[in-house]
Amino acid sequence: MKFASDNNGPVHPKIMEAIVRANEGHVPAYGGDDLSRAAIEKVRDVFEAPEASVFLVPTGTAANALILGSLTKPWETVFCSNFAHIHVDECHAPEAFTGGAKLTPVGESIDKFNAMELRTAISAFSPDNMQQSAHGPVSVTNVTERGTLYSLDEVSEIAEVCRVAGVPLHLDGARFANAAAALGCSAAEMSWKAGVDAVSFGATKNGAMAVEAAVIFDPARAAEFRRRQQRAALVFSKSRYLAAQIDAYLTDGLWLETAGEANRLAALLEAGIEGIEGVEFAFPREANMMFVWMPRFRHRALMEAGAYYYIEAGELQGDDPHEPLLGRLVCDWSVDEAEIAKFADVAQSARP
Amino acid sequence: MKFASDNNGPVHPKIMEAIVRANEGHVPAYGGDDLSRAAIEKVRDVFEAPEASVFLVPTGTAANALILGSLTKPWETVFCSNFAHIHVDECHAPEAFTGGAKLTPVGESIDKFNAMELRTAISAFSPDNMQQSAHGPVSVTNVTERGTLYSLDEVSEIAEVCRVAGVPLHLDGARFANAAAALGCSAAEMSWKAGVDAVSFGATKNGAMAVEAAVIFDPARAAEFRRRQQRAALVFSKSRYLAAQIDAYLTDGLWLETAGEANRLAALLEAGIEGIEGVEFAFPREANMMFVWMPRFRHRALMEAGAYYYIEAGELQGDDPHEPLLGRLVCDWSVDEAEIAKFADVAQSARP
Amino acid sequence: MKFASDNNGPVHPKIMEAIVRANEGHVPAYGGDDLSRAAIEKVRDVFEAPEASVFLVPTGTAANALILGSLTKPWETVFCSNFAHIHVDECHAPEAFTGGAKLTPVGESIDKFNAMELRTAISAFSPDNMQQSAHGPVSVTNVTERGTLYSLDEVSEIAEVCRVAGVPLHLDGARFANAAAALGCSAAEMSWKAGVDAVSFGATKNGAMAVEAAVIFDPARAAEFRRRQQRAALVFSKSRYLAAQIDAYLTDGLWLETAGEANRLAALLEAGIEGIEGVEFAFPREANMMFVWMPRFRHRALMEAGAYYYIEAGELQGDDPHEPLLGRLVCDWSVDEAEIAKFADVAQSARP
Amino acid sequence: MKFASDNNGPVHPKIMEAIVRANEGHVPAYGGDDLSRAAIEKVRDVFEAPEASVFLVPTGTAANALILGSLTKPWETVFCSNFAHIHVDECHAPEAFTGGAKLTPVGESIDKFNAMELRTAISAFSPDNMQQSAHGPVSVTNVTERGTLYSLDEVSEIAEVCRVAGVPLHLDGARFANAAAALGCSAAEMSWKAGVDAVSFGATKNGAMAVEAAVIFDPARAAEFRRRQQRAALVFSKSRYLAAQIDAYLTDGLWLETAGEANRLAALLEAGIEGIEGVEFAFPREANMMFVWMPRFRHRALMEAGAYYYIEAGELQGDDPHEPLLGRLVCDWSVDEAEIAKFADVAQSARP
Repeated sequence: MKFASDNNGPVHPKIMEAIVRANEGHVPAYGGDDLSRAAIEKVRDVFEAPEASVFLVPTGTAANALILGSLTKPWETVFCSNFAHIHVDECHAPEAFTGGAKLTPVGESIDKFNAMELRTAISAFSPDNMQQSAHGPVSVTNVTERGTLYSLDEVSEIAEVCRVAGVPLHLDGARFANAAAALGCSAAEMSWKAGVDAVSFGATKNGAMAVEAAVIFDPARAAEFRRRQQRAALVFSKSRYLAAQIDAYLTDGLWLETAGEANRLAALLEAGIEGIEGVEFAFPREANMMFVWMPRFRHRALMEAGAYYYIEAGELQGDDPHEPLLGRLVCDWSVDEAEIAKFADVAQSARP
Repeated sequence: MKFASDNNGPVHPKIMEAIVRANEGHVPAYGGDDLSRAAIEKVRDVFEAPEASVFLVPTGTAANALILGSLTKPWETVFCSNFAHIHVDECHAPEAFTGGAKLTPVGESIDKFNAMELRTAISAFSPDNMQQSAHGPVSVTNVTERGTLYSLDEVSEIAEVCRVAGVPLHLDGARFANAAAALGCSAAEMSWKAGVDAVSFGATKNGAMAVEAAVIFDPARAAEFRRRQQRAALVFSKSRYLAAQIDAYLTDGLWLETAGEANRLAALLEAGIEGIEGVEFAFPREANMMFVWMPRFRHRALMEAGAYYYIEAGELQGDDPHEPLLGRLVCDWSVDEAEIAKFADVAQSARP
Repeated sequence: MKFASDNNGPVHPKIMEAIVRANEGHVPAYGGDDLSRAAIEKVRDVFEAPEASVFLVPTGTAANALILGSLTKPWETVFCSNFAHIHVDECHAPEAFTGGAKLTPVGESIDKFNAMELRTAISAFSPDNMQQSAHGPVSVTNVTERGTLYSLDEVSEIAEVCRVAGVPLHLDGARFANAAAALGCSAAEMSWKAGVDAVSFGATKNGAMAVEAAVIFDPARAAEFRRRQQRAALVFSKSRYLAAQIDAYLTDGLWLETAGEANRLAALLEAGIEGIEGVEFAFPREANMMFVWMPRFRHRALMEAGAYYYIEAGELQGDDPHEPLLGRLVCDWSVDEAEIAKFADVAQSARP
Repeated sequence: MKFASDNNGPVHPKIMEAIVRANEGHVPAYGGDDLSRAAIEKVRDVFEAPEASVFLVPTGTAANALILGSLTKPWETVFCSNFAHIHVDECHAPEAFTGGAKLTPVGESIDKFNAMELRTAISAFSPDNMQQSAHGPVSVTNVTERGTLYSLDEVSEIAEVCRVAGVPLHLDGARFANAAAALGCSAAEMSWKAGVDAVSFGATKNGAMAVEAAVIFDPARAAEFRRRQQRAALVFSKSRYLAAQIDAYLTDGLWLETAGEANRLAALLEAGIEGIEGVEFAFPREANMMFVWMPRFRHRALMEAGAYYYIEAGELQGDDPHEPLLGRLVCDWSVDEAEIAKFADVAQSARP
């Protein structure tokens, strides 16, 4: 009953095999090996973007921060949602990599914002006022930090606001595959076809060991990315082992297969607990992550039975057994259906 | 005949097995797993430093830059050798991680400096002059960037200058194991017993996939390391795979075994080519790396026969077959003795 | 009818005379002259803080950013109001001087926040969560950016929250003198006696040419201020001319005299326009600045008659003569009473 | 006998009068006033550069650091002389304003470098090596930090190397006027006509109170200067008082008059002491500053007689009265000829 995070799961066997397979002989370092070149081509293929600049990095924050660093001047502000990972969970990496830019939350919701809210947020800063922040890139997350989805139309509308304002659009795709699987669309449709200029293309949460691809569709915007990556200490010498992961991840659609499986398992989990008394979903479950209010006594029973997940609001300790606490439940491809059934069972049968 | 770098070789089988073995089930991320805790304990054990702060990062530049960031204020200067990796090969990562510190080369030699040269360099900056750089940490590299060694006495003398000046001493140990094996001393003797305050303890060049340990002996100096690591995008979610590498690396003395083997193979290579007409060593070969002058015609013959290594000075193209060019030759544990013999053979039998 | 800003007015004659008087002979630079030492003593005297560290800088942003730089780590967040000058009007100087800290707005109001709102804002960040911002200093502005005042009690309550949270309290005193004059309290009461740890003590808006004092009550917090000031290019060589300004400003209570006069003139202006049809004050006028809604036709008549001030909300151009626009009106000590009377007259007699 | 620095002298009466004259009425702040616009036009006129971008800042370090910030990426290195003010006397302001660039000393001399030395220094960095520094701007100082001059030909030769390397050329003109007066050339000849792309045009050391102009000939390079200046806290609100200084400084050739006078007085001082036994000039005296070896007993006699200047090498205290110590002597326009005569006299008549 381990539903704490999709980064707690193991590496997918096909990816691990690829790593082991790559472990042969001497090859050039720092991306000069054949496998690294092939992996980058594979990313371009999947995105149907033969000109795109692609860089492999070991963490999602690295992809986000290096892309934002490439797109943002120190006196500009990034526009993002209130709970964007880049804003609240990266310990100022975006500020560090941009040399001191701000992040301005857009709208009132904590998962998504819409085109109109973005237009309002942008128009609060006048380009002629040298004392204020200047306009910087917009960043959306899909799957959002609350487990919901932006539709392609919603992204396109946001992209249109960006176009008018003359600022680029970044997509934090830590769960890109889960979104693509849920929306039933291609990588290209998720990104440049919807007006996205740069993607942090996640793999770690979806079966890889530690690799993400930074994809920038206009190479001119990526001209200095490699220098930024070097000075950020984010260039691997033995690059083949990053490449092997991405290569296997994109071979025979593995990335969509694992994401689809994670989404399916999350739907099972949702089905297993919805309807239980006191269970209420804070957001619609649309991919592989859900936020659910449950009375304290159910959370306690689950924890005692060995469940592992985060309480996002409220304290497990407390007097009132009926007080609702917000739990976050995430599935990756490796979750056991039996564990899901057991979780639902324990939640259901708990008593105050 | 691949002697370009010790980061071109494969992962040692025992380390790869450990990675595969770790690939089981769901475990906490970000260092919260048992294996990560065990690996850190193992580093402390090897260094005989039960209180030391230890952090696992994926690149050598990350270890160097995060440690220097922890030890250096933006208005201080780091003291290092003319050819220190931190000064000439890290694309300003130390400048970035310190927020704008300088690096001041010490002495005239390009591999090492001594205590007297350090004293002179430090005394060029007056602590009372607010316009100049302030005194920052000293950084030595052992094995040096030119393949030579600091003796323990030399390090101790440098440490004494640091103590008097009130500045910490950092050891860039990208090839720490090769130095320890060559000097026949323990990790503790190489570091804190000789007055070193912080070590970038390399593993990647010596058989790991991508992991280095930042070891800071006084935890007070490391109080903010984790925040720095987070904002540098250098915290792995699936931390167990970094831990598995270090754990295997330090089990049953594997780290010294692979380093000793690399040094032995380098000595073989040295023996194979010394005495050949026109072959001259720019620096004594003391560990697993050597810099050797050879006439152009020998380099050409080697390259044509499939050898792969870097020419550090001079151009392979050129008219004069006898012009000496400087080659860099490095061995890791995985080099084949037959390749060494072949290299010596080709070098010997080449004709202008 | 120039009410645009208190930084549009001239230098007070007594301050200009002091500058001219200082223009005699050769004296040491960079603060080594007698006048600089005397001026710093005078600041300490006025603040009844003989141990305080005091630095003279030419702009208010310099004082704010250097103080925040001294009090804030790059991974910490500063807490301030939604419209704090440091947040919206300094083009990321605080971000630059802190090396990438965030600024987190507190509460809902756009001028002030209270102790409870601050407690809530601080508690949103857990000190144990390495991915979030860490707790940094709190910054209040008095007179606020909307022309209102924090009472000494309000400041003390905020200071108590700071004390419990273990974070320092900064006071942006761009209009410190106007606040002190309005509150009828001393510099010490406005600051350390109310729990403030550091003050940006403004003079430029209140009769000086270009000088502000950064006052840090605990010298330990200021240990590196001078290095920061040097690398920020904010140390004057001919320091005597900064010192002469502060010296004259603090002599015979000139600072309170000019501020009191500015406040009195603002009260006159307020009295002159309140009661006019359609005139509504957005905030109580408590010192020398007011924000006032007036119908468009009155603004137009004023502008046509030569008035100079900023429209903060709405556009002077527009069809509806009755639409309310928000104007900002500021008085310094030099404003002519006749101009105030004329302004009130024009506003009153305007016709749609 | 105050020869310590040309920033120890007073403001020239004509400049002080201009400041006082500007102290009339309310005018827009932040450069929006007529006088600021006029001053900038005057700089353009003097430089015969009607399109140049010109910004007024209060310190020389501000002009240098903001210009270098505009011309340099964080991963580039600036090329400058070993003793360049930007390298050894600005407490890392260039590093801070560029976001972490390096400064690479060129050549062996401590005052100047030549075109060939620059070519060698630049060629040590390969543009294709992503681990090294990338090529950044070149910076020369004229008058140099050792009081010598670059001829126009020398600057042009350096500029040609810059052109070939594709990097801009910056001129630190803290003593620009002294150089122009000594070389007998115009501001345009000193700068863009010789291939200089940006100038820190000093005024403070030559009779102003606190103002320098950053002059960038190609406005495209200055597009973000104002944002940089704002976030550096270096924009004055009461800008008229900076403008008044520059305006007066450039009116009726005052800048060349004061500089010529300073040079003349320095020549008098040189003439007064040369030939005295044990007096030896470390560098030719070419403008208003000289470095002179004198036996300790002469320095002591001078200091005892009230002379004020810096000992650059050696200690005033010491046993051997004949040991040579290096003194730095600087004249500004305000030095009294009688003091020069007295200085020569005391130096001459001193006894061991």
